[in-house]
Amino acid sequence: MAITATETDTPAARSFGPAAALSCRECGERYDLAPRFACEFCFGPLEVAYEFGEVTREAIQSGPNNIWRYAGLLPVPGNVADLPNMNPGLTPLVRADRLAAELGMRSLHVKDDSANPTHSFKDRVVAMAVEAARTFGFRTLSCSSTGNLAGAVGAASARAGFRSCVFIPAGLEEGKVVMAAVYGGRVVAIDGSYDDVNRFCSELIGDPAGEDWGFVNVNLRPYYAEGSKTLAYEIAEQLGWRLPEQIIVPIASGSQLTKIDKGFRELIRLGLVEDRPYKVFGAQASGCSPVARAYEEGHDVIQPVKPDTIAKSLAIGNPADGPYVLDVCRRTGGAVAHVDDAAVVDSISLLARTEGVFAETAGGVTTGVLRKLLDEGALDPRAETVVLNTGDGLKTLNAVQAGVTATIKPSLDAFKESGLL
Amino acid sequence: MAITATETDTPAARSFGPAAALSCRECGERYDLAPRFACEFCFGPLEVAYEFGEVTREAIQSGPNNIWRYAGLLPVPGNVADLPNMNPGLTPLVRADRLAAELGMRSLHVKDDSANPTHSFKDRVVAMAVEAARTFGFRTLSCSSTGNLAGAVGAASARAGFRSCVFIPAGLEEGKVVMAAVYGGRVVAIDGSYDDVNRFCSELIGDPAGEDWGFVNVNLRPYYAEGSKTLAYEIAEQLGWRLPEQIIVPIASGSQLTKIDKGFRELIRLGLVEDRPYKVFGAQASGCSPVARAYEEGHDVIQPVKPDTIAKSLAIGNPADGPYVLDVCRRTGGAVAHVDDAAVVDSISLLARTEGVFAETAGGVTTGVLRKLLDEGALDPRAETVVLNTGDGLKTLNAVQAGVTATIKPSLDAFKESGLL
Repeated sequence: MAITATETDTPAARSFGPAAALSCRECGERYDLAPRFACEFCFGPLEVAYEFGEVTREAIQSGPNNIWRYAGLLPVPGNVADLPNMNPGLTPLVRADRLAAELGMRSLHVKDDSANPTHSFKDRVVAMAVEAARTFGFRTLSCSSTGNLAGAVGAASARAGFRSCVFIPAGLEEGKVVMAAVYGGRVVAIDGSYDDVNRFCSELIGDPAGEDWGFVNVNLRPYYAEGSKTLAYEIAEQLGWRLPEQIIVPIASGSQLTKIDKGFRELIRLGLVEDRPYKVFGAQASGCSPVARAYEEGHDVIQPVKPDTIAKSLAIGNPADGPYVLDVCRRTGGAVAHVDDAAVVDSISLLARTEGVFAETAGGVTTGVLRKLLDEGALDPRAETVVLNTGDGLKTLNAVQAGVTATIKPSLDAFKESGLL
Repeated sequence: MAITATETDTPAARSFGPAAALSCRECGERYDLAPRFACEFCFGPLEVAYEFGEVTREAIQSGPNNIWRYAGLLPVPGNVADLPNMNPGLTPLVRADRLAAELGMRSLHVKDDSANPTHSFKDRVVAMAVEAARTFGFRTLSCSSTGNLAGAVGAASARAGFRSCVFIPAGLEEGKVVMAAVYGGRVVAIDGSYDDVNRFCSELIGDPAGEDWGFVNVNLRPYYAEGSKTLAYEIAEQLGWRLPEQIIVPIASGSQLTKIDKGFRELIRLGLVEDRPYKVFGAQASGCSPVARAYEEGHDVIQPVKPDTIAKSLAIGNPADGPYVLDVCRRTGGAVAHVDDAAVVDSISLLARTEGVFAETAGGVTTGVLRKLLDEGALDPRAETVVLNTGDGLKTLNAVQAGVTATIKPSLDAFKESGLL
């Protein structure tokens, strides 16, 4: 139900810190802070709208060494750092001088989100959903997932004392399945693609069976999605309170890319960084590149595809935020591009051997797109650039060809004869 | 060659920050800061001796969000934070209220070192070895490893621009092998146990073939080992500048445990924490428990064993620092204990389902020993306790039985029929 401004001063609203309402991205209609995700009038997606208080660099810098240093910019209660949560974030921004040299770039950083508790950026968004679920009184956390999210939900549920039941497409990588299941929650594989899993979850939400469940990326999605803003905040702070000139972000649903843009704009509006242009580039795998195709063809509408790529964490054939991604990349002067699986594998190796960062396939996609757009002249090699690695190579071991160089007897002679010296 | 005090003011000495000399743990003989590891007189192990300047809590807290905030307490140059390194550390100290409740404890924290760049505590020690190798002009980094160290050396070599060649026993977990190899260095499997690999490396160091190689855990060992002190510093700082009353540390070579004790004592000596008693407990897997056996039998000498346990990262049958571990645990009023592989597996699950921490087998060993010593009354359930998780469950997937709960068709009916609601 739509609300007036005075109704936001409720206990629930105060639990969401500076968040003032939910707001429809399409028609602007405002709603109270409830577990809802679509506009009653136009069916547009809802997102969190804020009334920020004063936020200073000093206050942020004296906060905890995790995303809660930005609590004043997020839909979470003021005491969030004291509540049981996975406390992700403040992951390394790696100065990638050796990779930059190899690519002929002046300044390149890798934002390495494999350092999060379950080793993907999903810990950021789930941390938000946990706080919303606590406020709304949900007892079970759920999600549709390509793998990383299932692990993040499993771990966060264990830490915060929720039951969990996550849904994944059958046939995911072993590391992702074990990491989803080890925390003791239910892990249900669905015979079908991620998009089938997603449709199934929407059905479950409308059914009494799913009534008191918090689906982190469905009925808690407006809160959940805000977690990606913390990537923008951290990158700016770690660059010395400066926006990068170019950033390369992977696209699955597209939500992360649009929230990074939202985060940058908030920092400008609050005077925390200088207002200077930045370009946002989106990266997809060729085997699941509906947004890149729409970008290339100049369309505003995304044509869904059936994914076929090793980059399973990006294998969403019908990305909900695709049109908004196109808006952001076009508005900022960026682009959306895709690379094939061979380039993904090769780029994982490149990143590993130059910077010691072992990325999952999504990091191979962004690094691959970085190389491709440099080659094509769409990226400026002299501009300050950040490329995202959102996951961990340990979860996609099959994607890389790496093993022992040789097996030898334990003797010096055997080693010398091996030709490895 | 032994030195006099005035000879320490050399460029090399200044590159090691507050480190003043190497000192023999047995006879106290002092040496200059060179790539050496054994006393010429008594063959005792050498360790770094310091002449600390003023170190304050405030200076530490305003430092980088990694181990270099403690640069003033480590054998590294003052500008270390600007040099290419993996910058590990400041990993989460997780307040484990749900695990504490399940074990009947008042205050329990898990120090979770899986958050390090290659997801084990080894990044800490390798970061030190990299700085020493840079100062000494080595071009190749090497090590003998049970797996985690190989990954840490591979990644750090890539980041800092060293060649690498690591030696592992044949038959390690896939995740550890891939993570060692993906960074592009040589990975040599040795037909034999870790102790065979270690002997092989000692032979190689004495040979011209290994002349300009920095073996992080052999000829760079005195520098390398100091990295474990950062665990002590971080735990104390994260507790609010207070030592825990009890700490449970895994034992492989035993070096980590002795250095944590060294770190605690330094903090007391420098006035950074209150001088109060703390007890150090050592944890081994029953299948490789030479230190625990010596402790139980009241011996000072360690009887080497042939390891047979799933806790491969602790499978060192002839632990170099075993006698010093006994000293520390006896002096502080702690103990050394061991648990069998079934308890390791069960403890990994316990930690995962109560705290959302997915530990490797070594974390199962420490958590298992925590439970065992509580049951036996050797640990005080009312005392402030820290248990270490030094590695990541993703690298030892075979150790856990976790998979999908069920596979279903993408329909609500199928889900309801599954009995999972």
